[in-house]
Amino acid sequence: ELGSVQTPTPVAPAPNHLHAQTTSLESAESSAGLTLLERLEDICIDQGLSGLAGRLDDMVGFVAMDLAAFEAEFAQLPRRPQRVGRAATHLLDVGGKRLRPLCLALASRVGSGFDQHVLDLAVAVELVHSATLLHDDVVDYADHRRGKPTARSVYGNAASIFAGDWLLIEALRRVRRAGHPQLLGGLLDIIEEMIFAESLQLENRGRLSMNRETYFKVAEGKTASVFRWALEAGGVAGGLATAETKALAEFGQQLGITFQAVDDLLDLTGDPDTTGKDLFTDLREGKMTLPLIFALERETEARAIVSAVLDIPEHEPVPKDLARQVIDLLRRTDAVADTLKLARRHSQRAIEALNSVPDGAARRALATVAEAIVDRDL
Amino acid sequence: ELGSVQTPTPVAPAPNHLHAQTTSLESAESSAGLTLLERLEDICIDQGLSGLAGRLDDMVGFVAMDLAAFEAEFAQLPRRPQRVGRAATHLLDVGGKRLRPLCLALASRVGSGFDQHVLDLAVAVELVHSATLLHDDVVDYADHRRGKPTARSVYGNAASIFAGDWLLIEALRRVRRAGHPQLLGGLLDIIEEMIFAESLQLENRGRLSMNRETYFKVAEGKTASVFRWALEAGGVAGGLATAETKALAEFGQQLGITFQAVDDLLDLTGDPDTTGKDLFTDLREGKMTLPLIFALERETEARAIVSAVLDIPEHEPVPKDLARQVIDLLRRTDAVADTLKLARRHSQRAIEALNSVPDGAARRALATVAEAIVDRDL
Repeated sequence: ELGSVQTPTPVAPAPNHLHAQTTSLESAESSAGLTLLERLEDICIDQGLSGLAGRLDDMVGFVAMDLAAFEAEFAQLPRRPQRVGRAATHLLDVGGKRLRPLCLALASRVGSGFDQHVLDLAVAVELVHSATLLHDDVVDYADHRRGKPTARSVYGNAASIFAGDWLLIEALRRVRRAGHPQLLGGLLDIIEEMIFAESLQLENRGRLSMNRETYFKVAEGKTASVFRWALEAGGVAGGLATAETKALAEFGQQLGITFQAVDDLLDLTGDPDTTGKDLFTDLREGKMTLPLIFALERETEARAIVSAVLDIPEHEPVPKDLARQVIDLLRRTDAVADTLKLARRHSQRAIEALNSVPDGAARRALATVAEAIVDRDL
Repeated sequence: ELGSVQTPTPVAPAPNHLHAQTTSLESAESSAGLTLLERLEDICIDQGLSGLAGRLDDMVGFVAMDLAAFEAEFAQLPRRPQRVGRAATHLLDVGGKRLRPLCLALASRVGSGFDQHVLDLAVAVELVHSATLLHDDVVDYADHRRGKPTARSVYGNAASIFAGDWLLIEALRRVRRAGHPQLLGGLLDIIEEMIFAESLQLENRGRLSMNRETYFKVAEGKTASVFRWALEAGGVAGGLATAETKALAEFGQQLGITFQAVDDLLDLTGDPDTTGKDLFTDLREGKMTLPLIFALERETEARAIVSAVLDIPEHEPVPKDLARQVIDLLRRTDAVADTLKLARRHSQRAIEALNSVPDGAARRALATVAEAIVDRDL
């Protein structure tokens, strides 16, 4: 059944259906999730993956509905006039890819479907993600995120710290409200894992000798863990059996690693206008991303090039010549190709994990997300 | 029955009993809670309140046991080698007054008594308090706390932020484990309240026009709220009726305001060797404490004096002459006397709230804490 529909028929929703749904929503922010889907679809079409595009189109009906419900709920989060409230709102209003809530909603649809509890869990996972961004931006002295000034640069570090605390509390409150006590316990464990992964990353900042093992510990702890929880939460709320929920969690774990590897690539080869993030941001913060680790493993000259970038004072641009050296290094050591290959391998593992869950439109949609995420450019 | 026992008999535990209990514990830190009791007792004796001292002595048997159990459990919190783990351990090892767990334990003893659930809740409330200190120290650029370098000055701001996040998660995990779902919901609400009180304080930093109303909002939100929760948690875990638990919560609320008012006084008139905190720390951070608000309300010259202190560059000491001007100002405007009077009034309200809970050693002990807290010097 996979990859069946190639051309839209009058009965099947036309591609424009997407846009129609978007404009019918009240808030401009509401389009964030659909934009991701649209972009995924564009990527599929660009690459001649019309089967994939067909499937995306196929799934768009209920996904659009779920994401619209998510955006409506998210827009209703309490707006508080204090500086801390404004710092939180500032980040939330910038929008985001909504990838974690999207996956959570899809996981619930593998089971009994989307309801108020799932909505609470979807909002919670996006809030946890947002809370970590608010704290990370303070830790990283980040000035821009998603193409806008960071909350900390507008409202100060203190407000950004407290705003992160607040969103975390709001997230936990919603998970509590959604019932399923094991999900609350699981989320507390996941947040602890994230904190220690951030710590490990912090300790290895600027260490050119950081190895793959440490890299995967960080990526699993800070990125994959949240995807794992999101998929598990969707499965549990959808009433799936334990084995099926575990399979979904494994999908989330593998998707998270895929996501992180592609994120690493975008830091070095992405288009800042699309990603909303300056090129080499991670690198200049001393974060040893996967392509860099590959390059450093493979060529002794790499150390000098990477060190030169790290030595550039904070607010000065990277000289064009040096930027070109980095790109050349990554290409000739196959660091880009191999990072992409690794991402694709984990994406395949994610899709394989789905073999243990009931087939249907939701499962196919998850598989599509896992495939398309490799080629994303934002 | 209140204030009955005046001199210890051979049957009642002798004052030295306290010290005997302390030294039998493995960790030197374990004495923190008892030290508070000892100091409270000393204060009572100094002031000729031998009745009060007698009552403290009276209650020391089970309080010492509960606090020893608390310290043993607290010492077993996971020690993690990462920088974040060390930052957390750094703060926890410095010890503290353990006033919140003490009150929580006493509240439980008004009911069915101290057990594993109460222990988890007592550890949780101290962890929440510790988490806020770790974040506050970053926000306040604080270099010293409890007479030692702050975690942020040893391990950095980032580690201090993540360590605070971690302790919060560990606290929530313990509250979850203790059963009583309403306590978890209540704690999430309290933490939110604390965050917005911190925000309000932040916005009013250095504003000499901050009024009493705002002061009480901040004090209730950031300090009294945690005491309120601690007392409520003890009551709920001790199986008390709703009305009794509410009375205990009111006791906590009033005790918290008392505590904050005395804290404010100690910032201006305390002995740094005893408090472990430099004199004028709050003032120099621009925090409008209660005695300052009184002075600013009552004398127009006050603005110039306070502004002069705020203008001193961060790492320079306050000139002796200026310090004397501040003290003189506080004395001649009755700011010190009136702050103390206000603290005593709230302490009395706390004690009155106890009328609605069953009488016994635990209730008497709580009343004693409320009386003695006014005259504390640490």
